[in-house]
Amino acid sequence: MGGPIPILKVGPNLLTTIHVELTDSIAEVFQQDVLRAIERTGAGGLVIDISVLEEVDTYVARVLADTGRMAALMGTRSVLVGMRPEVAATLVRMGYGMEGVETALDVDRGIARLASLKENR
Amino acid sequence: MGGPIPILKVGPNLLTTIHVELTDSIAEVFQQDVLRAIERTGAGGLVIDISVLEEVDTYVARVLADTGRMAALMGTRSVLVGMRPEVAATLVRMGYGMEGVETALDVDRGIARLASLKENR
Repeated sequence: MGGPIPILKVGPNLLTTIHVELTDSIAEVFQQDVLRAIERTGAGGLVIDISVLEEVDTYVARVLADTGRMAALMGTRSVLVGMRPEVAATLVRMGYGMEGVETALDVDRGIARLASLKENR
Repeated sequence: MGGPIPILKVGPNLLTTIHVELTDSIAEVFQQDVLRAIERTGAGGLVIDISVLEEVDTYVARVLADTGRMAALMGTRSVLVGMRPEVAATLVRMGYGMEGVETALDVDRGIARLASLKENR
């Protein structure tokens, strides 16, 4: 857990708020930290909060989507929450719809989404 | 049941832990063994535990996903459990997200998943 982005256990889930710009190296450490935290805690769900981020380029978008896919392979569902309007607009205009990634408006709704995913599976 | 990978009946399900490297020939025998065990036992579910595997290349990933699809065609749901963080990271980076394959963190949760899948179908 050497990265600058904290990953907290909140109930049965992990919650992480990305509060710094994701450079290549930070993103890589972040991914590793998230996967190790899943392994260590056995968390059933993962909420990635990006409400602080004013810009998300396709590289970062891909890192976030990949992190969710990796978590899924390990058996943990994830939800991306708090994407700003201008970020959403930019990503869609660049043709990057982040297919297959679960989203919610904020952390609370993300946690609720994980709970409903758990019930329905 | 001539393969080196044991397939156990645990309650209504089959449980198999892959504890050796899956070479081409072992993988082929494993697939056959699993499908025959499903036919013979009438198991409602299948849990494939890969927590021992430190490496999973795309060939093995495909064998595992295919085995799940074959079981599904026979009417048996399957769950892949225990994928390690570094294995998940490698597979996603290679563009291999194993779509359509159910996953869980460990054997216990895999069995719980099978139970919930049974209820919801």
